[in-house]
Amino acid sequence: MTEQMTSQHAQSDSWHLGLFMHMPRMSRLEVLENTLIQVDALGSIVSLTRPDEPEYTERLHTARRSGALTEMSSQQMMIPGLVDLHVHAPQWPQLGKALHLPLQDWLNHYTFPLEARYQDIDFARQVYPSLVRALLANGTTTAMYFATVHEEATELLAATCLALGQRAYVGRVAMDDPQQCPDYYRDSDAQAAVAASERSIHAIRQLSGNQNQLVKPVITPRFIPSCTNDLLAGLGELAARHQCHVQTHCSESDWEHDYVLNRLGKTDTQALADFGLLNRHTVLAHSNFITDSDMGRIQEAGSGIAHCPLSNSYFADSVFPLRRALDKSLRVGLGTDIAGGHSASLFNTCQHAVASSRMLESGVDARLPAAERGQANARINFLEAFYLATAGGADVLDSPTGLFEPGRQFDALLLDLDCPENRLNEFTRANDWEDLLGCVVYNTQPCNIGRVWIDGRCVHG
Amino acid sequence: MTEQMTSQHAQSDSWHLGLFMHMPRMSRLEVLENTLIQVDALGSIVSLTRPDEPEYTERLHTARRSGALTEMSSQQMMIPGLVDLHVHAPQWPQLGKALHLPLQDWLNHYTFPLEARYQDIDFARQVYPSLVRALLANGTTTAMYFATVHEEATELLAATCLALGQRAYVGRVAMDDPQQCPDYYRDSDAQAAVAASERSIHAIRQLSGNQNQLVKPVITPRFIPSCTNDLLAGLGELAARHQCHVQTHCSESDWEHDYVLNRLGKTDTQALADFGLLNRHTVLAHSNFITDSDMGRIQEAGSGIAHCPLSNSYFADSVFPLRRALDKSLRVGLGTDIAGGHSASLFNTCQHAVASSRMLESGVDARLPAAERGQANARINFLEAFYLATAGGADVLDSPTGLFEPGRQFDALLLDLDCPENRLNEFTRANDWEDLLGCVVYNTQPCNIGRVWIDGRCVHG
Repeated sequence: MTEQMTSQHAQSDSWHLGLFMHMPRMSRLEVLENTLIQVDALGSIVSLTRPDEPEYTERLHTARRSGALTEMSSQQMMIPGLVDLHVHAPQWPQLGKALHLPLQDWLNHYTFPLEARYQDIDFARQVYPSLVRALLANGTTTAMYFATVHEEATELLAATCLALGQRAYVGRVAMDDPQQCPDYYRDSDAQAAVAASERSIHAIRQLSGNQNQLVKPVITPRFIPSCTNDLLAGLGELAARHQCHVQTHCSESDWEHDYVLNRLGKTDTQALADFGLLNRHTVLAHSNFITDSDMGRIQEAGSGIAHCPLSNSYFADSVFPLRRALDKSLRVGLGTDIAGGHSASLFNTCQHAVASSRMLESGVDARLPAAERGQANARINFLEAFYLATAGGADVLDSPTGLFEPGRQFDALLLDLDCPENRLNEFTRANDWEDLLGCVVYNTQPCNIGRVWIDGRCVHG
Repeated sequence: MTEQMTSQHAQSDSWHLGLFMHMPRMSRLEVLENTLIQVDALGSIVSLTRPDEPEYTERLHTARRSGALTEMSSQQMMIPGLVDLHVHAPQWPQLGKALHLPLQDWLNHYTFPLEARYQDIDFARQVYPSLVRALLANGTTTAMYFATVHEEATELLAATCLALGQRAYVGRVAMDDPQQCPDYYRDSDAQAAVAASERSIHAIRQLSGNQNQLVKPVITPRFIPSCTNDLLAGLGELAARHQCHVQTHCSESDWEHDYVLNRLGKTDTQALADFGLLNRHTVLAHSNFITDSDMGRIQEAGSGIAHCPLSNSYFADSVFPLRRALDKSLRVGLGTDIAGGHSASLFNTCQHAVASSRMLESGVDARLPAAERGQANARINFLEAFYLATAGGADVLDSPTGLFEPGRQFDALLLDLDCPENRLNEFTRANDWEDLLGCVVYNTQPCNIGRVWIDGRCVHG
């Protein structure tokens, strides 16, 4: 593999040659063999040339001459970078911890005290680079982050993503309701919270080196229960004024869904719409308990959903009706929900998305007759999960990534299929593309992720 | 770390010093800090000495002098080796493939044609060492295998385990019913099948180098639907005659459970008991649809259950009622069910065991009221899953492993917590043992498994 590429990045085009797989639509796997992809200095895909095209020989010659060609071996392939729509960045130090505790204990004894520590910027400096590096090593090229209430640490997270080259959406968390937030960790009041969120939007947009907006700010009410109505209304105005993304939790659990119904007399989705927080740039985490009418409203607004199957098994009392949402043309992507989910890997998330969709379809209680046990036609397969983790997630964010096609930014993973610690294709026949992608989705580990590019720039490996 | 150990293995004792964690009971995590374990030339734990014991200084001196001391760093720990109670060895080449197909297609287009290929011993020679090495790299020190109908390839699998040092239970698969088995892949009739299984028992017991019976034969009717009554009765007699282990699938899915009810007018469990196949040495895979009365029968017989949560989400139409089985004192361990499960890792199996138990408890369908959605008190936690993967699995097999205590064989994993590709303890405070074990159970990858010992012998790393 040519190693001059990164150094030449700023100056000229780079090239990638070999096997690419991606999914232009949920039902369509496209395999590009011996294909040559040209990426310009800004990371945009300029051309994609197959061997049977007349320009192939000439372009290949140019690529080789450039000294900026990444040539894959027969044991390598590339897929689009993975998009993680829901990460609680400050919870990284508690990955895999205390998940057996009831939610209230998990929050009050682990999560809130941990998040409060980011008041100390040195603690944030210790954690955030570790998190972003780990996500890159797991193939996550785009992440949508909840930070904490702290402006300085939130800006540090954004700056860390920028410095390490990760495409990111970073939100200062707004939470002001004394009924639901601990005294030691909340905004003092709605007005102060809105002002802090607005300053955070400016700070992230104006970060040094962020002229291409690789890192974007996100308006982030934690969830309705932790925000007063004044705060939610203020954040809605902020969203309209700044045209930036919005993220929050939506109808995640019985408790949360019922709490909002009791407090506001409507569902989370209706309430968010009424507060001006449901639009094309909104990402709703979980949404397990949304009604058919909520689905219609979300679809009309063009909002997206971050499906987090692993954390749902811990905290959501149910499985998100993914197939139903997809059938209604909702835009959906996947989230690890670190640290309500215990894995940093979107491949792992794909595995749980498939497994939980099948459990929703079959049901779980063997004592019930089969016909009464589950929801018919609820399953998704690994191809659909892979779509959600790549092009689907990119679509939710209106991000020009997730596919290999001219005009998109080159966010990609180079997979080493035959890595000695984990062989993905040892017994796969050449050209059995679905089988090979199955092995990738079901079993890729960080050791198989040889290199990672974002905006055409090699950021890992 | 001292490297002379393996070479000295046959001659003298070896020693291990550092942090050990194991679970003597399902509810009890024991942490042994700065502890010295002495292992004799046959792999048996001779002594376990804590720093506050009077013999500690003298024994540590002896250990250091011996040149056979494995001294852990502060970034390492040991846990007992993992016990995988259900592996279809011949299905290794299809790991992660075609799981989205209906079971009948998966069996007829993938599984049966693949298993039939082991008629060719050269194919078996290609696959089995790859499988056993991968399981060792994932920390599986004991595996219970279904092989194929072929005697030669079954013996080769057993010999491979022996050569690579894995504790194994290997069964020639018996399947003779022309109604349910393909013509190209089945025993010709019941008598021939019983004779072949009997020869396979002898062949495995008499393998060169197997004088300590590290590898044991298993009587293995595939499942009731693929066996005639004559075959099942014949295998029952064989079990009584040879006092060896029995494994089969039991009440796995709606189809299978109903098929047996229709054909025999009783459940799998009752039928197996009546055929002489339910005893202290029996391991029943899955058992999702067993009744309370079946549970009582299994408990009385002292049989064990191989719970395979991942493959259940694909093929079992339900979640195994694990908590209920444990409350009734059934002996249970875990199985990957390669390749109905897509992962070779028992850590992954632990993760799915916890997640699916929680989905059984909460239910899956958000449209139902919470009280009608799931089964109360069905969850297990990561500690319980870890118990099942170690001491629990060992108990099912009456294997003297799974714990660090004098008299048990030393089957152990050395974990590198701070491996650069995957840091397990970066943000864990010293002495937060449950948190640390949570990180291990939820996130260990092969890169964290530095060395593996079986019977005191280093077999990996």
